[in-house]
Amino acid sequence: MADRIDFETDPSRYRHWRVEYDGPVANLIMDVDETGGLFDGYELKLNSYDLGVDIELNDIVQRMRFEHPEVKVVVMQSGKDKVFCAGANIRMLGGAAHSHKVNFCKFTNETRNAFEAAEADSGQKYIAAVKGACAGGGYELALACNHIMLTDDATSSVALPEVPLLAVLPGTGGLTRVTDKRKVRRDRADIFCSTEEGVRGKRAADWKLVDEVVPNSKFDETVVARAREFAAASDKSDVTKGIELGPLDRSFGEDGSVTYSLVEVMVDRSARTATITLNGPEGDAPADMAGFEGQGDLAWMLRLCRELEDAILHLRLNEMGCGLWVFRTQGDPALVQAHESLLMSNADHWLAREVLAYWKRTLKRVDVTSRSLVALVEHGSCYAGFLAELLWSVDRSYMMEDEFDGDNRPIATITLTEANFGQFHMGNDLTRLQTRFYGDDDAVEKAAEAKGEALEAEDADELGLVTMILDDIDWEDEIRIFMEERASFSPDAMTGMEANLRFSGPETMETRIFGRLTAWQNWIFNRPNAVGAEGALQRYGTGRRGEYNMERV
Amino acid sequence: MADRIDFETDPSRYRHWRVEYDGPVANLIMDVDETGGLFDGYELKLNSYDLGVDIELNDIVQRMRFEHPEVKVVVMQSGKDKVFCAGANIRMLGGAAHSHKVNFCKFTNETRNAFEAAEADSGQKYIAAVKGACAGGGYELALACNHIMLTDDATSSVALPEVPLLAVLPGTGGLTRVTDKRKVRRDRADIFCSTEEGVRGKRAADWKLVDEVVPNSKFDETVVARAREFAAASDKSDVTKGIELGPLDRSFGEDGSVTYSLVEVMVDRSARTATITLNGPEGDAPADMAGFEGQGDLAWMLRLCRELEDAILHLRLNEMGCGLWVFRTQGDPALVQAHESLLMSNADHWLAREVLAYWKRTLKRVDVTSRSLVALVEHGSCYAGFLAELLWSVDRSYMMEDEFDGDNRPIATITLTEANFGQFHMGNDLTRLQTRFYGDDDAVEKAAEAKGEALEAEDADELGLVTMILDDIDWEDEIRIFMEERASFSPDAMTGMEANLRFSGPETMETRIFGRLTAWQNWIFNRPNAVGAEGALQRYGTGRRGEYNMERV
Repeated sequence: MADRIDFETDPSRYRHWRVEYDGPVANLIMDVDETGGLFDGYELKLNSYDLGVDIELNDIVQRMRFEHPEVKVVVMQSGKDKVFCAGANIRMLGGAAHSHKVNFCKFTNETRNAFEAAEADSGQKYIAAVKGACAGGGYELALACNHIMLTDDATSSVALPEVPLLAVLPGTGGLTRVTDKRKVRRDRADIFCSTEEGVRGKRAADWKLVDEVVPNSKFDETVVARAREFAAASDKSDVTKGIELGPLDRSFGEDGSVTYSLVEVMVDRSARTATITLNGPEGDAPADMAGFEGQGDLAWMLRLCRELEDAILHLRLNEMGCGLWVFRTQGDPALVQAHESLLMSNADHWLAREVLAYWKRTLKRVDVTSRSLVALVEHGSCYAGFLAELLWSVDRSYMMEDEFDGDNRPIATITLTEANFGQFHMGNDLTRLQTRFYGDDDAVEKAAEAKGEALEAEDADELGLVTMILDDIDWEDEIRIFMEERASFSPDAMTGMEANLRFSGPETMETRIFGRLTAWQNWIFNRPNAVGAEGALQRYGTGRRGEYNMERV
Repeated sequence: MADRIDFETDPSRYRHWRVEYDGPVANLIMDVDETGGLFDGYELKLNSYDLGVDIELNDIVQRMRFEHPEVKVVVMQSGKDKVFCAGANIRMLGGAAHSHKVNFCKFTNETRNAFEAAEADSGQKYIAAVKGACAGGGYELALACNHIMLTDDATSSVALPEVPLLAVLPGTGGLTRVTDKRKVRRDRADIFCSTEEGVRGKRAADWKLVDEVVPNSKFDETVVARAREFAAASDKSDVTKGIELGPLDRSFGEDGSVTYSLVEVMVDRSARTATITLNGPEGDAPADMAGFEGQGDLAWMLRLCRELEDAILHLRLNEMGCGLWVFRTQGDPALVQAHESLLMSNADHWLAREVLAYWKRTLKRVDVTSRSLVALVEHGSCYAGFLAELLWSVDRSYMMEDEFDGDNRPIATITLTEANFGQFHMGNDLTRLQTRFYGDDDAVEKAAEAKGEALEAEDADELGLVTMILDDIDWEDEIRIFMEERASFSPDAMTGMEANLRFSGPETMETRIFGRLTAWQNWIFNRPNAVGAEGALQRYGTGRRGEYNMERV
């Protein structure tokens, strides 16, 4: 089905990027195929990108960590003359539905966060080696790198021309990273973001827009030298061989449902609900990390994560009518703990580190998903450790209390592990339990004391781990009523409410990108000045500027 | 002109509130006149409010601090049976333009922030004594109080029914205060915010939605006891007599311009620009606080603040086409310092404290104003101390360098004082200089070393205090080009950009309300599910629910 956007790809299918591996340094070359747009109606000129280009980048970032652990420095650069990257394709944006624009931005933001965090998580540092025009989303790619180098010639510059040119924001982290990460003074940022042509040369460095400006004649050699230098300074352990990420084992149904090897996604379009069931391990954990490495991409925790991630992305983009996602697990919680424990007790092993970091990223995808989320803790479920994190990603959770008539599955329990207390921080830099009990450290303490116990409903409720516990009599009705009610609310109001309630307390650059920046961008994406018939996005390329309602609101 | 919304009022004109003063306790009674709406087309039933009701509340909060410094506890309550407050009037919202809704929400947010901060700033603690239905904006009024008491009967409850009922958010701080201030667990907040009928009795206290639930029979006496108790525990010094805030000295022009005694507002609708000139003191500062108190509301720093505040509110609501505000000052910077110094060196005097806190609030109003802001530092200007704060509230500043041909005014200077380093924190809890130099403490240090010096352009530029310095040759052209350019951009994109660039780094409950929450609310205010012909806001009261596009974006 051509209408389904597929987030799975592999190097043999890349059309827009290539990677040259050279020991600890990887050269990541953006060379977008103009004719390779995901949809009809636009050409990807000047290294501009659409969702298809970003799906490849996401795949590369992921494979870099699992298949190429030898890489310590990634140099992002352009395969075109005169242009680094012109940003998101404007004609694509102009023609896209609001919902596509919003989800496109979310996915690209997640990809940028992933390679930005690769230095801290995996010891892989990204350099942006900028030659040529680096504008809008192009500069936002560079901003998410850990180090920006700019060549000093007449045509190379960095720019965020969205506001003057398109009447929208540099919404893929641009505004936030300029002030929060690059620490550009806000009045300079104001000038920079309202100047179409951007900034080049010495001023770019003086204003902290780039880390260094290098004479054109010495640029290539300096980039090579800098990459080697960073690689030498890296404290990443030397790993020579990665594991291969093979194709996902999955089959799609006509109705949007998907069956993976461990994850089942059941879509009910009429009820506007998707049910995601995660299945526990079939057997014991490998004895050691050598055994885990031997299993490769078939290792349970890695396979489950890949399948869940693919399911999330599929549902977000392809099943927008499903406003409620229901998480379920089934399996043996003791086995879940055993598998997790192998990684937790070998957290300095490169692959353990990568799998744990991958779960962290994937749980964050859940956190920022604009769907109502609920978890059911049924008999036979296996919410232990990292799987229990789902209970505090979702908006509500319901747990079965006591025996259910005719249900022979093991009684529902929740098991906390060490991993729930510091392994999987949310975007706000708190654990999910800290966020849940924001301002109540005692509650977190009490939960910590219960580590390792298989907590049945009453205890879980007492500790505040679930929203509600329900016995055989109430279970079905309560959940049905909740689902029907939820499905009747305005999806927009739900999105706004959840975006506020899910992230209490402190904010970070990451939450500010998904909260403040994205919210303003989404507002602008609804305003006639940007998207109306006379708006700047629609008029782009016609030679006429947008016509604006000049009222300030 | 009836079309002009006037933010000035006084107790003789109140239609919706009354205050009963009883020594250290003031009873603030909301008793909205149904027929007293600011516009036609709706009745203010059930103690619902519109901007006019909030203008009175803002006036009360302000007079409480200046005219009634003896007050230590304010008890907010309803003058109606069965209802505390039903929130913002829905018909008013349904009929209002997007721009009015947004500005209405901003002003109400500022008022709530002002009485919420009164405890810390002035030792005035607000109690919400809730009897009857307390819903939506009504509960948001209570949330901004320092202590919430709820009577325990069948009809008294607190509720945020916006999402299920109206498809919009509890956007006047509701969502943010529930999690960040009240520390309600997020899944409970999710239930609470999607339940029309709200929560009452014990559960309201268990869930931390209120501080105490009191049996109905004992409610009134408990409220009185609690107010006395808080008053006795207050560390506010006993002041028996306040100063009167008389009518503002102002006259409006046909074109939206206003002339105050110290502030001049010149509106140029065709250029979409308003120029706000603040004039320095005419003479020496009073010798001591007794002298200052003797001057009362004519004291220069207080008068200037009142006039500036009124000008800001006037321009925001009545001149929405003016997308650019230009700040100017003229006067003797040494006199400005002298006046400020009197208050700074008597910061424990009640009136000095109030005037300084008032400037803090008013500067925050500038920060959150969605207009492009620029400050001109011309010859003859007096940007010293608190007036220099304006330079870092605005998006850009331009300073005259060297002598200008034919200009005999004293050369342009900027003078930093102690007040710039901790007296006027922004909403993000940083000083404006800390925000400006976010991540560069050295720059703040260096600026601190220059305290007391009248810094000419080159020195100010060197310290990073202004965006750009311009000499006689460039001044006029540069500023004209900037203004024309700014006036040509999409106002929406400007609003979004400024909302991101002005608040770098850490966020607080306050910035989260104006950033995250407001941005999502504004987005929803543009979506058909809320404001379309079949949207929930339009259909409210017709007996039919909104019809929604069920796609999640």
